[in-house]
Amino acid sequence: MGDIGLPASIPPVVVSSETSPPPPPPAKNKLFLGTFIHSKTLGLLEYLHKTAVAVNSLGTVVAISPDTDLTTAQTVLLPQLGWSPDTTDITTAKPNQFFFPGFIDTHLHASQYPNAGLFGNSTLLDWLNTYTFPLEASLSELSKAKKVYSRVIAKTLSHGTTTAAYYATIDVAATNLLADLCLASGQRALIGRVCMDQLGPSYYLDESPGESITKTKQCIEHVLQQDPKMELITPVITPRFAPACSAPLMTQLGQLAKETNLPIQTHISENKNEIALVGRLFPDAGGSYAEVYDTFGLLTPKTILAHAVHLTDKEADLVRERGSKVSHCPCSNSAIASGAARVRWLLDKGIEVGLGTDVSGGYSVSVLEAARQAVLVSRHVCMDEGRSGEEREKLSVEELVGLCEVDSDEEGEEEGNVDVFGWESWEERVAKWVYNGDDRNTKKVWVRGRLVHERR
Amino acid sequence: MGDIGLPASIPPVVVSSETSPPPPPPAKNKLFLGTFIHSKTLGLLEYLHKTAVAVNSLGTVVAISPDTDLTTAQTVLLPQLGWSPDTTDITTAKPNQFFFPGFIDTHLHASQYPNAGLFGNSTLLDWLNTYTFPLEASLSELSKAKKVYSRVIAKTLSHGTTTAAYYATIDVAATNLLADLCLASGQRALIGRVCMDQLGPSYYLDESPGESITKTKQCIEHVLQQDPKMELITPVITPRFAPACSAPLMTQLGQLAKETNLPIQTHISENKNEIALVGRLFPDAGGSYAEVYDTFGLLTPKTILAHAVHLTDKEADLVRERGSKVSHCPCSNSAIASGAARVRWLLDKGIEVGLGTDVSGGYSVSVLEAARQAVLVSRHVCMDEGRSGEEREKLSVEELVGLCEVDSDEEGEEEGNVDVFGWESWEERVAKWVYNGDDRNTKKVWVRGRLVHERR
Repeated sequence: MGDIGLPASIPPVVVSSETSPPPPPPAKNKLFLGTFIHSKTLGLLEYLHKTAVAVNSLGTVVAISPDTDLTTAQTVLLPQLGWSPDTTDITTAKPNQFFFPGFIDTHLHASQYPNAGLFGNSTLLDWLNTYTFPLEASLSELSKAKKVYSRVIAKTLSHGTTTAAYYATIDVAATNLLADLCLASGQRALIGRVCMDQLGPSYYLDESPGESITKTKQCIEHVLQQDPKMELITPVITPRFAPACSAPLMTQLGQLAKETNLPIQTHISENKNEIALVGRLFPDAGGSYAEVYDTFGLLTPKTILAHAVHLTDKEADLVRERGSKVSHCPCSNSAIASGAARVRWLLDKGIEVGLGTDVSGGYSVSVLEAARQAVLVSRHVCMDEGRSGEEREKLSVEELVGLCEVDSDEEGEEEGNVDVFGWESWEERVAKWVYNGDDRNTKKVWVRGRLVHERR
Repeated sequence: MGDIGLPASIPPVVVSSETSPPPPPPAKNKLFLGTFIHSKTLGLLEYLHKTAVAVNSLGTVVAISPDTDLTTAQTVLLPQLGWSPDTTDITTAKPNQFFFPGFIDTHLHASQYPNAGLFGNSTLLDWLNTYTFPLEASLSELSKAKKVYSRVIAKTLSHGTTTAAYYATIDVAATNLLADLCLASGQRALIGRVCMDQLGPSYYLDESPGESITKTKQCIEHVLQQDPKMELITPVITPRFAPACSAPLMTQLGQLAKETNLPIQTHISENKNEIALVGRLFPDAGGSYAEVYDTFGLLTPKTILAHAVHLTDKEADLVRERGSKVSHCPCSNSAIASGAARVRWLLDKGIEVGLGTDVSGGYSVSVLEAARQAVLVSRHVCMDEGRSGEEREKLSVEELVGLCEVDSDEEGEEEGNVDVFGWESWEERVAKWVYNGDDRNTKKVWVRGRLVHERR
């Protein structure tokens, strides 16, 4: 749904398989009644009022029925579906509530969650050494990892994140724990063990390319053991970023991606000092960060590239040719002063762009906050380029909501800091939610028909 | 306290008067026990743990006692003060809670609150016509004004705003209603009837300079009648902004300010098209927006100038010479693409800078959100100027908290989206609060010893 965002690697919401649902199996069919708002195409929201959506016990949407209220649903729709009221959970949104597709966070570091908001005045490379590596390394203690990962899953769900592309750490056991916790919580996730055999401190490095590959395979096998069809969790090949990976490691990761057809996630062109470092480490690439990854077969249609703040024209063309996607992380890019990504330019190139919170370079686990900041940063891009008459750089609320891709459903309500006076149009209510909404407005979250979060 | 922010016009928190407290009088003495965090100087927070602060029934802080717990307070401090436990309200912060000075919102339009988050892709001048003037005009209906003003006062209090510099509308009765509601709610406020005799639509204009002055005086008299010593509410002379005020009107407003010694608030140099318009309307000022106001005697040490995004060097020098203050409104400046104010440059000039939410050019009533955005925007300023090595443009969390001036006290607690794992330093807790805090973290708010908000 929509032409942007959902990486090809993420299992679609409509599951056609009729066998072996993941644990725990949803017990009942579900019927949702009320207003549904979703992104029809980029920049265009569709408002479906007085609508019924029927989801069977396997999580498959089996009917979308317009002009249907509770009575019609009970007397006409349920009989048509052959569903009895006794085996159907019916959720009716209040007049000021609406159902909205769940958010996909296309880039965040589960392991860095305790550092959200902590970065001082640092920028990328010193931030890694000061804040990030010590915390990530400490999660090899599994009790600590369990505490951190449980919280980040609960928090992201409470903000409506139904799918998350997670970086864990280099530790196999802790990464597998993250996978287990996502599965138990019902959150759809990409689970990435971080590969890095250089740049990091001695206490936090894969010892060799071979060890890095072995450990990565162990994590892949664990996920496939737990969720063989990757219905909820999927392994993702995760070279941290080019400066932290030797050429032999990246060669082997590229081969692994080819063999397994698994998704890849990494960072690209986030910070100017980082780009200069890549230029020095990989002189054969002629200063092209994108070409470094491409050389090693890491730019695939299933690759998520976080940031892409300073891509050159030629690099962007290469990314588009390979069909790789970009995760735009405005909170992080502003917070650690990386730059202002030119999202309109990326979209115009034909590159698919999704939103990432990039916790903890980004300070918030909320994709809604990322959407808000993406709107604001797009205005800085517009102003920086001195195009006071050229308004195309600005992203609209509708476009940003469009970037938060369809996944599952959440039920929103105006309250908390979204103050609705009663005279607002639905478009205005959505704008108010984008600018002042928070987790209080997300009442219930479902993934594959399972209620995974409820606000009490 | 601190060298920045509190406009000279706002009554200080320590009230020395011994007579006629404003209604309703606080009944009891108050003792606050726990951790107090406040801005000692710009950029430096002081952490006072295990401290007692005694506030008498008139709202005056009469003792700050270090190393004092509940027992010490009851056995030593209260007897010293001659206070009996029966006539003293004791509030003890929990170990993870702290007391923090209340926020001063130096610029917001109470009348525009229903439009918070609504601006589409507009910029200043079209935003005024599309969103702002119709709403402001509609508040001449007093029942609507009451609804809007009651909500904005309750909301700002819930976010810890103990003092607000409000723009109302051109309507006298509605402006006086705002004053009455602030007084009843216990929020300290500057109350500004908006003066504008040009630019606005025919349905929303003062008919002449004379009418504008008469109506302004009516509002001043009303406030002085309700709160003769201006202990809680203060009238503020409010020329909307230069393009909306004729030269005769500004002349008379300057005279009124001189006669009454009242504060002034207006907008300056927000948007490039606006600046060009000022240049055309006031050709004698040679393109200097600041000089327009100065010509009419409107740049005083009691003047709050909102925005100041595009001031020239010469204009900034003039503002500093006159002792006028700047209200920095980063949410608004980004949202309606006005620009990125160079706060460090203003501070270096010696100009006092406070924070404003500028609702509804700004989307949020939260001064904490304004602080957060000020940090982020300062990074864009840093990046725009291409000073990757020059980090001085960046504002730190500590500085931004410093800009939220001391007023009264609020009691904060880590919860909501501030996730504290237990190993954080107090500095890190404050950073987490600045980046992820919201009204849920503000438990109780006092102004002049009166509890004006409590979160349940």
